[in-house]
Amino acid sequence: MKVTPWEVSGNIDYNKLIKGFGVSKIDNKLLERIKKHTKELHFMLRRKIFFAHRDLNWILDEYEKENKFFLYTGRAPSGKIHIGHLQPWIFTKWLQDKFNVELLFQFPDEEKFLFKQKLSFEEGQKYLQDNMLDVIATGFDPKKTKFLIDTKHANLMYKEACRVAKKITFSMVKSSFGLNDKSNIGSIFYTSMQAVPAFLPSILKNKKIPCLIPHAIDQDPHFRLTRDILPKLGHYKPGSIQCSFLPPLQGIQGKMSSSSEISAIYTSDTEKEVERKIKKYAFSGGQTSLKEHKEKGGNPDIDVSFQWLKYLFEPNDKKLNKIETDYKSGSLLTGELKEILINKINTFLKKHRQKREKARKQINKFLD
Amino acid sequence: MKVTPWEVSGNIDYNKLIKGFGVSKIDNKLLERIKKHTKELHFMLRRKIFFAHRDLNWILDEYEKENKFFLYTGRAPSGKIHIGHLQPWIFTKWLQDKFNVELLFQFPDEEKFLFKQKLSFEEGQKYLQDNMLDVIATGFDPKKTKFLIDTKHANLMYKEACRVAKKITFSMVKSSFGLNDKSNIGSIFYTSMQAVPAFLPSILKNKKIPCLIPHAIDQDPHFRLTRDILPKLGHYKPGSIQCSFLPPLQGIQGKMSSSSEISAIYTSDTEKEVERKIKKYAFSGGQTSLKEHKEKGGNPDIDVSFQWLKYLFEPNDKKLNKIETDYKSGSLLTGELKEILINKINTFLKKHRQKREKARKQINKFLD
Repeated sequence: MKVTPWEVSGNIDYNKLIKGFGVSKIDNKLLERIKKHTKELHFMLRRKIFFAHRDLNWILDEYEKENKFFLYTGRAPSGKIHIGHLQPWIFTKWLQDKFNVELLFQFPDEEKFLFKQKLSFEEGQKYLQDNMLDVIATGFDPKKTKFLIDTKHANLMYKEACRVAKKITFSMVKSSFGLNDKSNIGSIFYTSMQAVPAFLPSILKNKKIPCLIPHAIDQDPHFRLTRDILPKLGHYKPGSIQCSFLPPLQGIQGKMSSSSEISAIYTSDTEKEVERKIKKYAFSGGQTSLKEHKEKGGNPDIDVSFQWLKYLFEPNDKKLNKIETDYKSGSLLTGELKEILINKINTFLKKHRQKREKARKQINKFLD
Repeated sequence: MKVTPWEVSGNIDYNKLIKGFGVSKIDNKLLERIKKHTKELHFMLRRKIFFAHRDLNWILDEYEKENKFFLYTGRAPSGKIHIGHLQPWIFTKWLQDKFNVELLFQFPDEEKFLFKQKLSFEEGQKYLQDNMLDVIATGFDPKKTKFLIDTKHANLMYKEACRVAKKITFSMVKSSFGLNDKSNIGSIFYTSMQAVPAFLPSILKNKKIPCLIPHAIDQDPHFRLTRDILPKLGHYKPGSIQCSFLPPLQGIQGKMSSSSEISAIYTSDTEKEVERKIKKYAFSGGQTSLKEHKEKGGNPDIDVSFQWLKYLFEPNDKKLNKIETDYKSGSLLTGELKEILINKINTFLKKHRQKREKARKQINKFLD
């Protein structure tokens, strides 16, 4: 297992990650506390897809004292958006709606340029434009959501990043991110830019505002460092809430990757492409013959189609449980399960693409 | 001898620096070539105070082909301006006037903050405002001079700095600047920001423009690295012209420092302060008794008052030579030499302060 902000591979043991990273498991008590405010629990919470957190109880303490938090999440543009990217955004939108809070959405448009030898800055900028549409299509409230693009908003960010940077030594980024003497000095500096949105609203509004960061667990090393530094600058430590990874098409190891066509369903994939990819590549937990499947049943835990329904496309627990039971019993066949998923994805993506088209005219609302 | 962008100390052997840094000595042939364009030679050239260069012949080749260079120099604000700071600026103004060229004046307002543990960003900003007045008072043409403040112009600069940073590894800054694992990641990144003004006009005007950087020799490690990187980004290597250091008051070792009150004359020093400092601290090359001085004469090479006349305050070679001869012969006494200097400095500073007051209303002209 390898989980860093730049590489996720192997069989991911989330309990090991909780211990290794030092995050806290989200327990039922905390779920109940959230539910007091949100009335219902998002399926990603019920199913422990968002499974860990840092200081979420403190975030709720402050919220209950009417010291509202803001949300901070982001996307480093370097490729097309796939459904794995949408997962935490969908949850973030739910948090925004339920808690009625502001969201700062960062586009660190230098990050992937600095970390990927072959990516040109210009190519990254094309994806930036493209990716913003998918973020808007997720449905964030334009009145409560601001985009922060590192190179375009550097006037706001660079100065603050320097304050962070002064508190971080090369030793610290070496141990947090595995950088070394051959790393370029932009990649070494970068984590300071990722820290800035966690306190920028506090600077701009000249008062301390709690920050909650929903993110996939691989980004935790950045925010762990951010949490160490921010109190030294007179800011709150940001709270965070972590999700597990949507598995790639070919099996439940690692995470969905933009760079592998056969691992991902992109928001731009046509209905035909979705059908073809799921039928051809989606790893099945079913048995090799129809007879064997009817006898022994399938294994939903390793079945990517089932996992995707669980992670994203079947919010209804009863329906999901029925699919799981039927699949385990062998009465639901792999082909049938895949059909359910294909329909769900295509229904979802049809709407998403409509919203994405409308988003072209909305970008400026998010950039002020 | 130690000469880095952050520390200059010891007996400075400029011939050793020329070899060590790999710059070229300015010879008489090059001086003649400059003179063809400027009609006269600035005393800092005649006296080899600007003593070394990189690619100045190429800069002139291009100039003669009507591919005009622009000038780039700067000031990292962290204290009051002293006369040692003015020295290269006065020469830069002369270059601007004689070659009729644009000047980009950088204020890297994060540099000293990142490199000095105790300097707060806010304190640096106070000095930034203060230092800009001294730069303007030097007389740069407001129509041909633009200020570039790193944190205020980060929208223009950070993106370009990232392009530079991608080409520089930690190993390279380790060997160029002696940074190490304990260095903060802002200081590690910083040299990329210092590289940007050398090609920013080429980006903004979308054509390759030669750049000439007048600077004190201690900054050469930055620009050596800049020269290595810029061709990889499709830009010209900047040319440069280096000066030696105005000696500090207490003796000809090291360079004048803002942080030591007794080493420097500040532009804000009153006439009385100037008189007191010179009389009390200016290291003398004279003999200990009047009798001995009359007999053996003084040594102008180690006499700070004489050196300051040579470096800054007596542009007339004949007058300077007479002072030198008289001092060597013993007919000019240390006290008399100091009186000459005190008058020169106070005449200069009176005018400078008048221009400095007027500069308060001119800042915006330089910031557009």
